[in-house]
Amino acid sequence: MIITGEALIGGLAVKGKGGSFNAFDPSKREELQPAFHMVDVSQINEACTLAGAAFDAFRATSDAQRADFLEAIGAQIMALGDTLIERAMAESGLPRVRLEGERGRTVNQLKLFADLLREGSWRDNRIDSALPERTPPRPDLRMRLIPVGPVAVFAASNFPLAFSVAGGDTASALAAGCPVVLKAHSAHPGTSELVARAIVKAVELCRLPVGVFALLTGTGNGIGQTLVAHPSIQAVGFTGSRSGGTALMAVAAARPQPIPVYAEMSSINPVYLLPQALAARGDEIAKGFAASLTMGVGQFCTNPGLVLGLAGDAFDRFAKVAAEALAPVQGATMLTPGISGSYQRGVAALAGQECVRTLAKGEQEEGKGAPALFQTTAASFLAERALHEEVFGPASLLVACADVAEMAAITERLEGQLTATLQLDEGDFDAAQKLLPVLERKVGRILANGFPTGVEVSTAMVHGGPFPATADGRSTSVGTGAITRFLRPVCYQNLAQALLPESLRDGNPLDIWRRRDGALGKA
Amino acid sequence: MIITGEALIGGLAVKGKGGSFNAFDPSKREELQPAFHMVDVSQINEACTLAGAAFDAFRATSDAQRADFLEAIGAQIMALGDTLIERAMAESGLPRVRLEGERGRTVNQLKLFADLLREGSWRDNRIDSALPERTPPRPDLRMRLIPVGPVAVFAASNFPLAFSVAGGDTASALAAGCPVVLKAHSAHPGTSELVARAIVKAVELCRLPVGVFALLTGTGNGIGQTLVAHPSIQAVGFTGSRSGGTALMAVAAARPQPIPVYAEMSSINPVYLLPQALAARGDEIAKGFAASLTMGVGQFCTNPGLVLGLAGDAFDRFAKVAAEALAPVQGATMLTPGISGSYQRGVAALAGQECVRTLAKGEQEEGKGAPALFQTTAASFLAERALHEEVFGPASLLVACADVAEMAAITERLEGQLTATLQLDEGDFDAAQKLLPVLERKVGRILANGFPTGVEVSTAMVHGGPFPATADGRSTSVGTGAITRFLRPVCYQNLAQALLPESLRDGNPLDIWRRRDGALGKA
Repeated sequence: MIITGEALIGGLAVKGKGGSFNAFDPSKREELQPAFHMVDVSQINEACTLAGAAFDAFRATSDAQRADFLEAIGAQIMALGDTLIERAMAESGLPRVRLEGERGRTVNQLKLFADLLREGSWRDNRIDSALPERTPPRPDLRMRLIPVGPVAVFAASNFPLAFSVAGGDTASALAAGCPVVLKAHSAHPGTSELVARAIVKAVELCRLPVGVFALLTGTGNGIGQTLVAHPSIQAVGFTGSRSGGTALMAVAAARPQPIPVYAEMSSINPVYLLPQALAARGDEIAKGFAASLTMGVGQFCTNPGLVLGLAGDAFDRFAKVAAEALAPVQGATMLTPGISGSYQRGVAALAGQECVRTLAKGEQEEGKGAPALFQTTAASFLAERALHEEVFGPASLLVACADVAEMAAITERLEGQLTATLQLDEGDFDAAQKLLPVLERKVGRILANGFPTGVEVSTAMVHGGPFPATADGRSTSVGTGAITRFLRPVCYQNLAQALLPESLRDGNPLDIWRRRDGALGKA
Repeated sequence: MIITGEALIGGLAVKGKGGSFNAFDPSKREELQPAFHMVDVSQINEACTLAGAAFDAFRATSDAQRADFLEAIGAQIMALGDTLIERAMAESGLPRVRLEGERGRTVNQLKLFADLLREGSWRDNRIDSALPERTPPRPDLRMRLIPVGPVAVFAASNFPLAFSVAGGDTASALAAGCPVVLKAHSAHPGTSELVARAIVKAVELCRLPVGVFALLTGTGNGIGQTLVAHPSIQAVGFTGSRSGGTALMAVAAARPQPIPVYAEMSSINPVYLLPQALAARGDEIAKGFAASLTMGVGQFCTNPGLVLGLAGDAFDRFAKVAAEALAPVQGATMLTPGISGSYQRGVAALAGQECVRTLAKGEQEEGKGAPALFQTTAASFLAERALHEEVFGPASLLVACADVAEMAAITERLEGQLTATLQLDEGDFDAAQKLLPVLERKVGRILANGFPTGVEVSTAMVHGGPFPATADGRSTSVGTGAITRFLRPVCYQNLAQALLPESLRDGNPLDIWRRRDGALGKA
């Protein structure tokens, strides 16, 4: 398949009417061909209007049809073959093995949602039987979840496949029955076009309305703001920076009809070194931490950017071993010059803080990111809010605490996080019990004896957390739970069987789990 | 129990430090004693801080303990006896039979949430088994929903019991494990104080932290804005006007940490007269409609404020019969002078529209509301947005449409609604099939051959709908589904059994429905 630099609207490749831009190879530091043409306002509006027009037909498809569609997308992505991997490597600087793995994750994610649809209980179908003899009589009430409407999805820079054009937001929205208007990330427009063409091909093969999917290409904030303000759009999925996410939240809240925004934004993912674990296996934890911190040049939302331990010899040794593990790690190419520049400014700012000691800091070459490890005191951390901010890349800050109570106190002062990690042994369980209630309030996922990088795509995953980890802590953007972001309940009162949706009819024709008079069952 | 005019903070009756105001008997048109003292900012902050401090202990209670607590509240409300009913009658002008019924509904609602807690699956517990042999290994992942934190609840004027101090918002928030800081409605402060004292008594009896519940008393918008802005507050439940709800949405969105607002605000609840049903039983429907419109002086969120029918003899006859049924209905006391004044201004504005014909309009006496029925054309309705606005009270507007397609077109232009009602016979099913997809997008509940007033409290009820029916169409404020408004997911990765919440432990010690590797079961 050839990359033409076009957007995809109404099932057709269309040349953007705005200006043009080129992708950039961050490894070779050179522009890539061809040029991409930016969509203008009329093209954004057209994509949204088509999505609105496609919505009723798309949501009227059966779960089995949408499951087939998701798997067809996966097959079409695989059919792109090495063209996709090579373009993604060129645009992201990420290695082949990582991108092949990410492609597998992307395809499996589509498959997971297909399985969810086939299982059938995702609509939370509920039936309350009529009680005609009661005073007053109770009507027949049936409830199901339906899709909210077209969803605007903003692709992330750091996962050019799994959190991008056919990533988790798109997969969960399409599974729900919501058309998707996708704003490609300008860091990997060619990868985006290829995947979008795969989706459009699947739309064709499955004979779905052309408005089910559109790809908008461009740079800057204007496209996103126009997209989120369009009346057809009913929800937003976003993965990116805090400033980008909060800007979209503001646009969504200011609409005549406000809409929900699911923005995954900012997290420093605290790691807690509990004393017994630190004493027993501090060196091993330090090495594991260094590996987690530098994996993928630290360009993960779940990167461990904060480590809390009890001041003392064991923690000093941890710091030393971690710094030693980081020292030989060379700076590596980051996703974009912008990300690299921002990382280097963040590292320099931390290094320049009077209250911060630099334990390790590689040479920061242009376009790259070298690991950096810092340390400060609990008092300084509490006093200086700048130390709480995410530095996207392989940088982390160690904080020496007086005791577990101080760890908890610091946690209380943290903003919302995607994850928290406890390094603990059995002797640490009492300490963990003190921390857990605070952590539950602050984070979406609590890990024991692992590292937060690595987000399983499954039923029980939560990749979410209180603001600013996400815009809306009631949700996850990874795993099957992500579908609920794009659903809302509708109740049918005394509706005739012939008019009821199949999932709510008597006799349970779809043979799915439902709740009847409050009790789960298939009867 | 004696009404003292005090707020309830920290389990104690405290005299507000702000100004004072009196309740008003809308039937006798006289002030009621005693005076109520308004809380000041320091008292609001104290209530919120106590709620925050109580949160971890309250959410650590077992489901059985919170179920007992909810039932204890119900018992304490019943123990108030006639004192409560008489005060509510005086403050609302509503008749005894209605308020006794509403008390029953309130107590049953608490019982429904107690039953939900005892059933145990409300946390949506999920377990994904570890797959240590997989490459990469899958960790053990367990997910449950936890409460979001203290909730600010704003009581409604029109249900002084069921949507007020111990109403659906409070019941669902307490069931979830969220402390509640309740802003009493200034129209029934004495009723509020009595019910709040019942809750505080139940808090004592159940030995719960004093911060679990607080009652704030006062008038004006200041208390609500301070309350919603307080950092301890993590969600908002509100039933009231569109202006009030959107003002709180703005405060919540402008916080350093934005929080969700569940405001139930504005709805005109369209009724669709499909041709076969209209021809077969138009008179009966007209009489039923008139009864639904005037019930409780039209002071329901689900009052049928818009009727769409096909222009012609049958619709003309419907209009005539409905007008005749309304003509003898006297104006009746409305809840407050403010509501009555606003209703009368709304009726006058409709009557003054050039494109609107008045079919029935009773004499509007001070403090009362008399039924009013108007008619306009589809073209006028589409052209004049003012005709789409809710007139809270017993007023409705008939719109003559050319055909079902025009009914659908008008529906497309409506804002979000709580309900839509289809009057239909079997011969109307084709027409209904055309309307249903549009209705699903616009409303929270679709009724057949009934009237929208009357909202069952059950498992499958949806009392919600797209903006501006509610601030957040992904939710219901009535029925067990309301609990999900105050929950968010947390995932536990590789956590030791001893540290896991009981609902997620191996062996299913609580014997509840859970999802293991995607499949529902109790294994």
